[in-house]
Amino acid sequence: MGSDAQRPPQQPRSPLSGRTPDSPRAGDRERAAELLAEERRSIDNIDAALVHLLAERFRHTQRVGRLKAAHDLPPADPEREAQQIARLHALAQESGLDPVFAERFMRFIVTEVIRHHERLRGDGPARPADDGPDRT
Amino acid sequence: MGSDAQRPPQQPRSPLSGRTPDSPRAGDRERAAELLAEERRSIDNIDAALVHLLAERFRHTQRVGRLKAAHDLPPADPEREAQQIARLHALAQESGLDPVFAERFMRFIVTEVIRHHERLRGDGPARPADDGPDRT
Repeated sequence: MGSDAQRPPQQPRSPLSGRTPDSPRAGDRERAAELLAEERRSIDNIDAALVHLLAERFRHTQRVGRLKAAHDLPPADPEREAQQIARLHALAQESGLDPVFAERFMRFIVTEVIRHHERLRGDGPARPADDGPDRT
Repeated sequence: MGSDAQRPPQQPRSPLSGRTPDSPRAGDRERAAELLAEERRSIDNIDAALVHLLAERFRHTQRVGRLKAAHDLPPADPEREAQQIARLHALAQESGLDPVFAERFMRFIVTEVIRHHERLRGDGPARPADDGPDRT
């Protein structure tokens, strides 16, 4: 908070905080808290969209996993992954996302997908909770 | 691919592969390759959407980071993170995403965001390549 008790009372009011500037730091912090809450509402909406897109992505990769298992194709496909990472790099640059982060993100997702594919091949422990409904 | 030269011409062709059934495995694999390519086109579209949403999410968290830096708030906020993770768990269950994966995903993103916030506070090395354009 901090105190500015010495400030003269005739000072104009801050248009942003609606407070007299004898507590500019308190007013600023209040305004900052409002802005923070505002940003967080957008972030929460984006996160909901991300979760739903990821759910949809895993529905596709589960179909890929079943195809690979049925045709005895290896769970990982380094050539495809290299193409995906190159493409994501370009998309990241276009959209203003750090390409290094985009690459880490893609590797994070692909690692999870390969784990799913291994389970479908029977290489890993069965996890009916997340693969079950799609296998029927 | 495989050859079907020996097959009598009157044999029915497989409706899926367009091949005669003397090479069912080859036909199956061809059909599997088509299905795989089809799934991958959807996955590529979803990945482009994910990258753009992540770019937008980081624009919001960069604003949050600047607010936190300006008001001397700590980069991490464990209470907010716990709320986000609980909410993402619920959204994951609703959309059919493995909630354990959703939580790992959220921690992965939040770790990156905290790294950005630390840079904005000057706790970490400056990386103008990804924070620069938003700071002006």
